[in-house]
Amino acid sequence: MATGDIGLIGLAVMGQNLILNMNDKGFTVVAYNRTTEKVDRFLANEAKGTKIQGAHSVQELCSKLKKPRKIILLVKAGSAVDDFIKQLTPYLEPGDIVIDGGNSHYPDSIRRTKELEAKGFLFVGSGVSGGEEGARHGPSLMPGGSNAAWPHIKEIFQKTAAQAYGEPCCDWVGEGGAGHYVKMVHNGIEYGDMQLIAEAYDILKRGLGLHESEIAGIFEKWNKGVLDSFLIEITAGILRFNDDDGEPLVTKILDSAGQKGTGKWTAINALDTGCPVTLIGEAVFARCLSSIKAERTSASKVISGPQKEPFRGDKQMFIDDLEQALYASKIISYTQGFMLMRDTAAENNWKMNYAGIASMWRGGCIIKSVFLSDITKAFNKDRNLKSLLFDDFFNKAVHNAQPGWRRVVAQAVLWGIPTPAFSTALAFFDGYRSEIVPANLLQAQRDYFGAHTFRVLPGKENERLKSGEDIHVNWTGRGGNVSASTYNT
Amino acid sequence: MATGDIGLIGLAVMGQNLILNMNDKGFTVVAYNRTTEKVDRFLANEAKGTKIQGAHSVQELCSKLKKPRKIILLVKAGSAVDDFIKQLTPYLEPGDIVIDGGNSHYPDSIRRTKELEAKGFLFVGSGVSGGEEGARHGPSLMPGGSNAAWPHIKEIFQKTAAQAYGEPCCDWVGEGGAGHYVKMVHNGIEYGDMQLIAEAYDILKRGLGLHESEIAGIFEKWNKGVLDSFLIEITAGILRFNDDDGEPLVTKILDSAGQKGTGKWTAINALDTGCPVTLIGEAVFARCLSSIKAERTSASKVISGPQKEPFRGDKQMFIDDLEQALYASKIISYTQGFMLMRDTAAENNWKMNYAGIASMWRGGCIIKSVFLSDITKAFNKDRNLKSLLFDDFFNKAVHNAQPGWRRVVAQAVLWGIPTPAFSTALAFFDGYRSEIVPANLLQAQRDYFGAHTFRVLPGKENERLKSGEDIHVNWTGRGGNVSASTYNT
Repeated sequence: MATGDIGLIGLAVMGQNLILNMNDKGFTVVAYNRTTEKVDRFLANEAKGTKIQGAHSVQELCSKLKKPRKIILLVKAGSAVDDFIKQLTPYLEPGDIVIDGGNSHYPDSIRRTKELEAKGFLFVGSGVSGGEEGARHGPSLMPGGSNAAWPHIKEIFQKTAAQAYGEPCCDWVGEGGAGHYVKMVHNGIEYGDMQLIAEAYDILKRGLGLHESEIAGIFEKWNKGVLDSFLIEITAGILRFNDDDGEPLVTKILDSAGQKGTGKWTAINALDTGCPVTLIGEAVFARCLSSIKAERTSASKVISGPQKEPFRGDKQMFIDDLEQALYASKIISYTQGFMLMRDTAAENNWKMNYAGIASMWRGGCIIKSVFLSDITKAFNKDRNLKSLLFDDFFNKAVHNAQPGWRRVVAQAVLWGIPTPAFSTALAFFDGYRSEIVPANLLQAQRDYFGAHTFRVLPGKENERLKSGEDIHVNWTGRGGNVSASTYNT
Repeated sequence: MATGDIGLIGLAVMGQNLILNMNDKGFTVVAYNRTTEKVDRFLANEAKGTKIQGAHSVQELCSKLKKPRKIILLVKAGSAVDDFIKQLTPYLEPGDIVIDGGNSHYPDSIRRTKELEAKGFLFVGSGVSGGEEGARHGPSLMPGGSNAAWPHIKEIFQKTAAQAYGEPCCDWVGEGGAGHYVKMVHNGIEYGDMQLIAEAYDILKRGLGLHESEIAGIFEKWNKGVLDSFLIEITAGILRFNDDDGEPLVTKILDSAGQKGTGKWTAINALDTGCPVTLIGEAVFARCLSSIKAERTSASKVISGPQKEPFRGDKQMFIDDLEQALYASKIISYTQGFMLMRDTAAENNWKMNYAGIASMWRGGCIIKSVFLSDITKAFNKDRNLKSLLFDDFFNKAVHNAQPGWRRVVAQAVLWGIPTPAFSTALAFFDGYRSEIVPANLLQAQRDYFGAHTFRVLPGKENERLKSGEDIHVNWTGRGGNVSASTYNT
């Protein structure tokens, strides 16, 4: 007599809201939580008057589900996921599907897919984005894992997901850890977007000396243009949110941000892959720097910046420049993010649908924006697009933004306002469009001190400098002629 | 009849040179290499007329060494080290010392110390820096591992090491992986130093339009001031090194630099530790960007930079500014590097002697410089110095450098010349000296979309915002009041 369409374990805010959302879409959800009082409290309050059922043990949960069973875990990433899988398996039958909707690291999802498939079960590691609002009203869902699971969960997932531009913000991402991988990159990009907005806020506040209510107005205006997005929208809302004394609440919040998690993983993945995803790296490090509040406070007392001079230019023009700086930096951040997915897909032999990924992110998630529609279009026009900067639309956009972007970064530097993300985006842009970068000097240095050899620049070949050869030069006239084949300094 | 003081495995350039160096210092070295023809060739050529002995098997090598045996491996980091340890142990006796002088990752050295000690042997993981020249005439040696090994290898190590300011560039770093850890950070800093020099070269070449011979003169002059260092010195030498046709050789070198290794590990360690070591991160990513030469070449054809305008200012003043920009950025890089060692030491309960570390790096290694004497002095003055920027000397230096540093970065931004390392150093500096950074907005956003909570800024507490509490605000008036205790977006 099992009537449950899907089970969900973990009744923190995300879990509760996802259950209510699936219930709204017509599915019968069975809710379970390790601390079972939470189940009762949920059924008596938020879930009152719905079809939602409760379970007080994993056995009861499994007994209430239609086959093949589908069970979503929304618990803390790490050992808790493995613990629940271990608890569940005695009550599962071949073909049953365990879905991990937490922020698991993608190598764990690769491992869990293999482990559960070896036992005859199916596993799905799904990115779930959108925070509590998204979970409640339609998140972006990025499922991957056992391909055979997709037909069974497709309807529930696509109906539960946000709808944007007439399409569900959910599609099958790929095998193994692909779902959680794409979610990880999404979160890294989210770190970047947030840092860029924070830098713009800082420039408007410390640079132009504007009040939060004025800055809110600027973000509201930006939210009607190319920057139209969830994060810009909520930033305006935050800046307008006053404490009881009329002061903006944001000015009373400790400036120390957490960072352990997916942003860090994305940056490490970039380093491991050798892909220059500098903006996410800087965004993660900016959070690290924010977190050493006491040290910064000490430093602020013994290190002074440049003399503060009032801004003499045209404020509105500068604000327009800033909009372009934010837009261009965002283009670079997404360019880097899609480069990273491209390089990692190549390493893992994954076939990724980049238009599909951008399309999934258009709604339901933290980074949802008009911008992602333009990315969807770019990859639909050219499925093998090497870089967003090669797409006509973004190429034109970044060229238009360039002069203002440079003025903003230069001005921030002279003001002494830190813009690590704006700056690194511009440095990447200038390096990326440079046919020659000064790495020739690095190679010369490495050959000088470590006999690491170098290659000749195409067009400069001669008798001594042959194409395709590892060349070592005796720069000093001393030392041996042995090249470093096995030892790297 | 064993007469060997120490054995060495691995006859690539570093190994050969280290053997010749130890021989010069009066030690009898036994040389072995997997491909034994290399042993014969070495004995017949470079080692001819010395006391150096050869071995054609690990058994023969061990039989020729005095007890306790000391054997240095200078082989490729990774499985080769474990393979040789496995080959050696049947011929070792309790108390014998295996030394890994390669670029091993410090967690491997922690593991190997434990493994060999469990069998009654001793293990040393030693950083060896200085490239072929250093190995030949005196490297910087950073040994760590089994404390009991140090008295047995101290004389050989300290005599073989470079001598600077009357002291050997070698001292015991600490237990477990401490030696390779400090070497790793050294290499990360080396990446940073090299990238900074490359950016200065690029600005002088593409910005001011100077020829390599003129730039060489500038580096030669800098090498007499605060930047006096091995890397500045060899850069001048490289820039003066012409190909047979009179063109500077560096202009014919492919601008694509390798990066897999210790620089990357340092950046990953920084991310894992949550320490904002941004400059090394950017230096590693700059190499990644250099390596996608084909993609950059394509991009250079479809993305244009700002209109190139001739420099109208005072060139010499700008060059002096650039010297200050390089100096200040270098101060930041070392500030970050020592922060990282401090944080990692705290995590591992290591007691590190920072003055000793700076002192070891003053000679024999790639980053040797006058600068490191100033760091040694700073830590000798205050062993618990929290940050180099709190030291009087560096505090004054960075204040002096600041105006020129800002002018250079702003100018590079307007020129369109990428300066990721200069820029990130300045952004870090401005963030570090900011009592308030805009992470309050990040925290508000995270609480808005994910109920992640925030803390109140000291001084802003009230009835609703209590000190020490995790505060959640219902920003929208919608959604629940549940905070995200177990789920992190």
